[in-house]
Amino acid sequence: MSKVVAFGEILMRLATERHLRFSQANFFDVTYGGGEFNVAVSLANYGVTSDFITCLPNNDIGQCAIEKIRQRNVGANHIVLDGKRIGIYFLETGAGTRGSKVIYDREDSAIANIKEGQINWDTALKDATHFHWSGVTPAISQNAAAECLRAVKTAHEKGIIISSDLNYRSKLWKYGKDPKDIMPELLKYSNIILGDIDTALFMLGKSKVTPNYEDLESLSKLYDIIVENCPNLDVMATTLRYSVSASHQKIGGILYDKSKILKAQTRDVTPVVDRVGSGDAFMGGLLYGLINPEFDLQKTLNFAVAACCLKHTISGDFNLTTKEEVLQMVDGNTSGKVSR
Amino acid sequence: MSKVVAFGEILMRLATERHLRFSQANFFDVTYGGGEFNVAVSLANYGVTSDFITCLPNNDIGQCAIEKIRQRNVGANHIVLDGKRIGIYFLETGAGTRGSKVIYDREDSAIANIKEGQINWDTALKDATHFHWSGVTPAISQNAAAECLRAVKTAHEKGIIISSDLNYRSKLWKYGKDPKDIMPELLKYSNIILGDIDTALFMLGKSKVTPNYEDLESLSKLYDIIVENCPNLDVMATTLRYSVSASHQKIGGILYDKSKILKAQTRDVTPVVDRVGSGDAFMGGLLYGLINPEFDLQKTLNFAVAACCLKHTISGDFNLTTKEEVLQMVDGNTSGKVSR
Amino acid sequence: MSKVVAFGEILMRLATERHLRFSQANFFDVTYGGGEFNVAVSLANYGVTSDFITCLPNNDIGQCAIEKIRQRNVGANHIVLDGKRIGIYFLETGAGTRGSKVIYDREDSAIANIKEGQINWDTALKDATHFHWSGVTPAISQNAAAECLRAVKTAHEKGIIISSDLNYRSKLWKYGKDPKDIMPELLKYSNIILGDIDTALFMLGKSKVTPNYEDLESLSKLYDIIVENCPNLDVMATTLRYSVSASHQKIGGILYDKSKILKAQTRDVTPVVDRVGSGDAFMGGLLYGLINPEFDLQKTLNFAVAACCLKHTISGDFNLTTKEEVLQMVDGNTSGKVSR
Amino acid sequence: MSKVVAFGEILMRLATERHLRFSQANFFDVTYGGGEFNVAVSLANYGVTSDFITCLPNNDIGQCAIEKIRQRNVGANHIVLDGKRIGIYFLETGAGTRGSKVIYDREDSAIANIKEGQINWDTALKDATHFHWSGVTPAISQNAAAECLRAVKTAHEKGIIISSDLNYRSKLWKYGKDPKDIMPELLKYSNIILGDIDTALFMLGKSKVTPNYEDLESLSKLYDIIVENCPNLDVMATTLRYSVSASHQKIGGILYDKSKILKAQTRDVTPVVDRVGSGDAFMGGLLYGLINPEFDLQKTLNFAVAACCLKHTISGDFNLTTKEEVLQMVDGNTSGKVSR
Amino acid sequence: MSKVVAFGEILMRLATERHLRFSQANFFDVTYGGGEFNVAVSLANYGVTSDFITCLPNNDIGQCAIEKIRQRNVGANHIVLDGKRIGIYFLETGAGTRGSKVIYDREDSAIANIKEGQINWDTALKDATHFHWSGVTPAISQNAAAECLRAVKTAHEKGIIISSDLNYRSKLWKYGKDPKDIMPELLKYSNIILGDIDTALFMLGKSKVTPNYEDLESLSKLYDIIVENCPNLDVMATTLRYSVSASHQKIGGILYDKSKILKAQTRDVTPVVDRVGSGDAFMGGLLYGLINPEFDLQKTLNFAVAACCLKHTISGDFNLTTKEEVLQMVDGNTSGKVSR
Amino acid sequence: MSKVVAFGEILMRLATERHLRFSQANFFDVTYGGGEFNVAVSLANYGVTSDFITCLPNNDIGQCAIEKIRQRNVGANHIVLDGKRIGIYFLETGAGTRGSKVIYDREDSAIANIKEGQINWDTALKDATHFHWSGVTPAISQNAAAECLRAVKTAHEKGIIISSDLNYRSKLWKYGKDPKDIMPELLKYSNIILGDIDTALFMLGKSKVTPNYEDLESLSKLYDIIVENCPNLDVMATTLRYSVSASHQKIGGILYDKSKILKAQTRDVTPVVDRVGSGDAFMGGLLYGLINPEFDLQKTLNFAVAACCLKHTISGDFNLTTKEEVLQMVDGNTSGKVSR
Repeated sequence: MSKVVAFGEILMRLATERHLRFSQANFFDVTYGGGEFNVAVSLANYGVTSDFITCLPNNDIGQCAIEKIRQRNVGANHIVLDGKRIGIYFLETGAGTRGSKVIYDREDSAIANIKEGQINWDTALKDATHFHWSGVTPAISQNAAAECLRAVKTAHEKGIIISSDLNYRSKLWKYGKDPKDIMPELLKYSNIILGDIDTALFMLGKSKVTPNYEDLESLSKLYDIIVENCPNLDVMATTLRYSVSASHQKIGGILYDKSKILKAQTRDVTPVVDRVGSGDAFMGGLLYGLINPEFDLQKTLNFAVAACCLKHTISGDFNLTTKEEVLQMVDGNTSGKVSR
Repeated sequence: MSKVVAFGEILMRLATERHLRFSQANFFDVTYGGGEFNVAVSLANYGVTSDFITCLPNNDIGQCAIEKIRQRNVGANHIVLDGKRIGIYFLETGAGTRGSKVIYDREDSAIANIKEGQINWDTALKDATHFHWSGVTPAISQNAAAECLRAVKTAHEKGIIISSDLNYRSKLWKYGKDPKDIMPELLKYSNIILGDIDTALFMLGKSKVTPNYEDLESLSKLYDIIVENCPNLDVMATTLRYSVSASHQKIGGILYDKSKILKAQTRDVTPVVDRVGSGDAFMGGLLYGLINPEFDLQKTLNFAVAACCLKHTISGDFNLTTKEEVLQMVDGNTSGKVSR
Repeated sequence: MSKVVAFGEILMRLATERHLRFSQANFFDVTYGGGEFNVAVSLANYGVTSDFITCLPNNDIGQCAIEKIRQRNVGANHIVLDGKRIGIYFLETGAGTRGSKVIYDREDSAIANIKEGQINWDTALKDATHFHWSGVTPAISQNAAAECLRAVKTAHEKGIIISSDLNYRSKLWKYGKDPKDIMPELLKYSNIILGDIDTALFMLGKSKVTPNYEDLESLSKLYDIIVENCPNLDVMATTLRYSVSASHQKIGGILYDKSKILKAQTRDVTPVVDRVGSGDAFMGGLLYGLINPEFDLQKTLNFAVAACCLKHTISGDFNLTTKEEVLQMVDGNTSGKVSR
Repeated sequence: MSKVVAFGEILMRLATERHLRFSQANFFDVTYGGGEFNVAVSLANYGVTSDFITCLPNNDIGQCAIEKIRQRNVGANHIVLDGKRIGIYFLETGAGTRGSKVIYDREDSAIANIKEGQINWDTALKDATHFHWSGVTPAISQNAAAECLRAVKTAHEKGIIISSDLNYRSKLWKYGKDPKDIMPELLKYSNIILGDIDTALFMLGKSKVTPNYEDLESLSKLYDIIVENCPNLDVMATTLRYSVSASHQKIGGILYDKSKILKAQTRDVTPVVDRVGSGDAFMGGLLYGLINPEFDLQKTLNFAVAACCLKHTISGDFNLTTKEEVLQMVDGNTSGKVSR
Repeated sequence: MSKVVAFGEILMRLATERHLRFSQANFFDVTYGGGEFNVAVSLANYGVTSDFITCLPNNDIGQCAIEKIRQRNVGANHIVLDGKRIGIYFLETGAGTRGSKVIYDREDSAIANIKEGQINWDTALKDATHFHWSGVTPAISQNAAAECLRAVKTAHEKGIIISSDLNYRSKLWKYGKDPKDIMPELLKYSNIILGDIDTALFMLGKSKVTPNYEDLESLSKLYDIIVENCPNLDVMATTLRYSVSASHQKIGGILYDKSKILKAQTRDVTPVVDRVGSGDAFMGGLLYGLINPEFDLQKTLNFAVAACCLKHTISGDFNLTTKEEVLQMVDGNTSGKVSR
Repeated sequence: MSKVVAFGEILMRLATERHLRFSQANFFDVTYGGGEFNVAVSLANYGVTSDFITCLPNNDIGQCAIEKIRQRNVGANHIVLDGKRIGIYFLETGAGTRGSKVIYDREDSAIANIKEGQINWDTALKDATHFHWSGVTPAISQNAAAECLRAVKTAHEKGIIISSDLNYRSKLWKYGKDPKDIMPELLKYSNIILGDIDTALFMLGKSKVTPNYEDLESLSKLYDIIVENCPNLDVMATTLRYSVSASHQKIGGILYDKSKILKAQTRDVTPVVDRVGSGDAFMGGLLYGLINPEFDLQKTLNFAVAACCLKHTISGDFNLTTKEEVLQMVDGNTSGKVSR
């Protein structure tokens, strides 16, 4: 049986009520989320055993985060309690032509100060079949990057499948290192990568490209460069997103497995209830499809795209859908009929 | 002056805040509703005297339901106070490609256990000109079906016009009887029927058909079968609905009066605030049009369709609109201008 | 440096939660707003010094309004504390085919009873470069109209630029005077006018016209009539609005400066969160563009249209956007991407 | 069977959330209430048929008030729809040493402008056994006072028992008349009066007194003066209240029936959830006791005091308690045990 | 290391906002709780491994309950997914002289229909050191009583310490059996019992007594009878509660261990935020003290009383306090100082 | 005319709804506050011109704080926009025996990193008559302490009266300095000090004392030590607080002016709505009394105590009361009567 271990940061999310601007907020909805954890939640929802490893302050706020992890049926037994604060992000949800707005207040969070030895990766990865991390973690701090590398190496040694979401955030990477200083070493071990091709090449220190996702031939050459630098890579996928407005998105996807390039039908998503975490929903769907022996690659990609679409209709970071709900959409049922 | 008596179940509706999934709910909005009662509310809003008959537990929760009935200016003086519980339904409102979800918890409700003699139909139908019931009530239990038949027979004897909404719910009908065992006897007395033609034939025990609502000729033949089995039928109408997504519906309608078939213009409804009760809004509009001597059948159908459309913009089970508001839409004013 | 002084009424706005009908409201969101004040807020948001002059009751409710004025960085030092009540408006926000609904309860408000001498316009307009008023104020009462005239005359004498939003409301003008009795004298002093051409001519007592905003030649002739009656007029602008539904608007604009007629691209606005105050947002954008020496007239008009569009995505009367946010939209960025 | 008709004003009550000051309120809870209506609600709760007569504006806000009247099972069929606005009161609930605060905005309300003939008292009082009014109504306006007198005279002619709550509010009585100009004529017809003795004498135009409610002998002489001026008086009662703080009240009562003076045990009420309407709860309890043939005067007084105490624990104007709940308290059960 | 397994029902709790009556509720706070589960939560909060076994419907509502169990760090891996509905209780929280009100709607819940074999007690009790049940479970249905007996017998055979809260609810026990038919067999295996002495004797089928908790000698004799009938009993404890009002309770406790009777200081609890679950908080504290080798019996009793007191200040069924917080109170720190 | 300039930190306050524990919070009320700012708000409420100087991040969150400062009529024109984040504190409000809980997340806030020259004290203190700071600011960081000293010295040079609240927080002072290293130099310039005598001596580096506030003679000697070290001191005052429970406080005060010691009557405060900021309310009252030429020292002290008491009844950091409301309490009106 599969068991996925995800490693990364979980943030407190302080969001204004839908569509209110920060300046109008008299209260914030408080939930918790973060790219890697969101993936773990997706997998738990689909029935896959999953575990989340992070570092949280040993106070009531840290406990709240742990309670939310457990509530989602994600293991929390290897979480390190140390550090001064939980990272925070403030969210204002847009509408129509007004985009959503995120303000980070995550510097100096518990995980940014993680120290070697606080996580025993040997124990933490026991029984794991998959390990998931994203490009956000090495972007936080030198310590977090180092911990990520320790995790990846241990996982690789144990023969665990490693999946990575590139997740480039230009507002992070402030500790004196660029992605190209850190990411190539980390991505070497990845078996599965989610991200834009241009982001991958940028992180690998290659020159800037503008991939044409309609031209499979040219894509193929770009994939070749990535494969050269990621010798363990088996599957790379990309979410194709066209943003009509904050309330209307078009979502498709593309998947490459070193032998072929597959595409999924693009779908309209409107209205958008909350698009934060929709990339993580794609990642969760992709990983689930790859884990599930009954799914071929096309079904896997379709599942990832459908999961991503459904996430846009759900408030909060998590894609709170079951496998059956995603499959209904894969099977073409998008009419939103009342289930009764 | 007309007086409509409706008979059926009123449920407690526990709904998550708009678009939240059950799993995210920290509170439920609590309102009350039910197909037949919703029709009574529509009629009261249009100025028709209406009365609702049901059975409710004799406790604070039952009293809450009665208060809501009275608040809507629907008579509550013949309600039976007996039984253990009010039926409940849990509602999660969808968005876009994610449909709404209803979970019923209505077994063993007060009305399911109604006993002969608790309602004195002779008294209850005094002064009534119309009696309304729907296919939900005989689907609840043997007792409820029997009570429905007693009501229908008494109404028929008194020369009261009987309207029926077929309202087939496959999740009900669990007490050992099929619609075809119960409905033919009940529908015999109906003067007005709302429902799909295929549902009508199914309930009458006929073989399965797929009506083509574009082909009036073939429809005509199907109507003939219904008329044969419903000797009192004067008018049959159907809501034509195309579900683009949970947030976008297209609504039209068709009406047959034994001499001709009328159709109404199909309208776009987007966004959908709440589609529960929109069929009842159609029924309420239909009945109002048939009662109002100033409306011809085409205007009646247009009014029913407009009422159904407007309901989708209103939260809760009820179509809280005035006659004037529906007529504005019938007259083509759908631009949603601010009234000030 | 510019300083805009606006004069008018600020109302308490009691709004149902989004999409609820009045009949469903258990609470009202309480905010404050009013056409002229909304313009002052827009200007303060764009960095222009602005001051608001009104009359409010000397009780806790009046104080609440003043606190909200100060919160928006609008000067409140010349507000008169007198009178019995604040004007109120009740708002129910529509959706789709159901329009929003406004119920006024503003008779006998503090400003309706303003008395000569309570405002010292000489002091109040000290340092002002612009004075803004709208057609709502002279519509309230004889006293308010008289005060408006005193303000306009003082401003004109001081060489202050005067801007006017015609803002015709047929439900006001109940004190025995028609617009044509009052407005011509007031508009004589206006340098900038916002409003439909037909409204302007109606207020000036001219015969009814139906301007064709596609036919610049015929427009030109209508503008000539206005200029004849408004000898100080430099710029007249109009919001062009097409209402698809309460949730979907199309917004454009037109501007005339006595030498030429400019038009702005029409934009789709969907969904509409709140359209109240969107005309004031246009006015605020127009005035800002005219004040900003770096803006030419075309950019000014584009800015006004973009401001108007953005306002529709924001709850409440105010256009809570920064200059940078409006300019992003002017520059074509309407995809609503997450800013993070 | 008894039927009580109450006449007076129903106000919209806009209250801050518990304990928030006006300056902190982002929303107001919106409910409806008013002295005479609150009494009608109490009686309906105890099972007495009751009807409320008032004047309300013919708009959505007026309809909301009517819906709330019907919800409480109080008759609304004789309400006049006319006038411009509903009266409003703003409420801030205190705590401890900080008292609650009420701001009235009720001038020029619908009932203040009631015109002779709008209410047909002959029809309205058909079948009534009791008529209830309070000193608030004649304090509103000349029209309201005149209407009150018409009602009282008709009731008296019909042999209906008349109850009056003195309810002196110094902030009203602004239309040029003092209580002593109006009240003596009205009180002449009263059979039952609730109020302080000093208030009664003041309203009757007598010189100021300070009754000592501990000294029955001196009280007796004061009652004599009242009886002289109120020839129909049978029972007069007074709520005895000692206010320890906004959160702690002591409540007792005294009753006089021309032959004797009865007192009820003083009870501690803490915490106070909402004290508005507690006098009306006393009045409702008093009237119920006098109507109920099984209650003697002592039980009647005890019932009124208990009802008043319970009201303090309930939010809103209404005493939402059943007869059984009040009787439990009369019988000494004040321990607040969980009923399960 | 200790591991406590609790067995019983978990209910959906639908509560009005604080102090509102059912009739005023527009929404219900939705949480989950139940006597045995509440004990498991207390123990998990104190750091004891705990597991909860119940039966829940296999739908979204059942999943919500499971998520809340996991959130509290209580094991949910042996929960049976079967049955039609979750039991519900409606709660209205009182204040002062008005008591709280509970309405049960729990008939025919999932656990009431549990069938032999659905729970494998051998597996479920693996590694358990303690098993906890209460008198509510055998009161639900014959099936639940039978399952309880199977659990108790298996636990006893495995040498697991058995604790029981008598929890007599007269509104249950409706399936044709009395406590005396069922409880003696179950209590035979109990090592720890919480409950009033009179309740214990009543359940054991003994004649009615009124224990005087001040007279240790007479108590001693009553304890003897219990011990005779409960041969495995080691410790029996009772919460001593005096209810001044719904907002003010006095809480003490008594403990008997076959050799001596201990008492704890009675404490004032005011205000009461929520008293539901305070008995379970006592039980959780008692069990924790008995498990913790560093606690003697007096400290155990003091800890149970302090836990019970603290629960009254916390909304919801659970005693969300840490061991440290309870110990602070045991140590006399009840001044409620701000911890900062 | 007086003008008070306050300098310090303003924090975002994220509070659970009343009485909920952090673990139960689904949203946080978001307000802003901080010791020195709270004093400025009090003074603005009493009609004194006041200005607040701090450092805030130049983003939407910083703007929200500034808006709240302006809303309270406190000047915000000298605020420095720089730094990465606003300090945050999380608040859980206790009840009865459960105390409130504060979790700080304020490290590395904007003001902690203030740099010399960012505030031009010469300009900032123009027209000021009073300067207020508290012991929290030098406790934040070396930079903040240095800025505080620059402010104090400039103020002293300008002959401005300096008031200081000692406000010792052991959780701060983490940057390598103790109070005794920093405070003596700062306090040298203070004319007015609020704080416990033992805290003052501790901060001045003196040996630990336990003042007996009942023994004026011994107090006198302790005051002598303080005066020796604070050569500019004119008035020192202390809030005397006895905490019965989190819901019940007793508040008194003591004041020393180098010639005599005055005491104020101790008052009961129950229930406590929110005690955060009550010390600042005392400070604000004290300062107001000293500024107001009509107040003698006894009235000043009484005013400070009454202000402190009233604050406990108000949610949030601010003492939102008027001078008139505080004076009512000084004059003995504590019965909490409804003001209507």
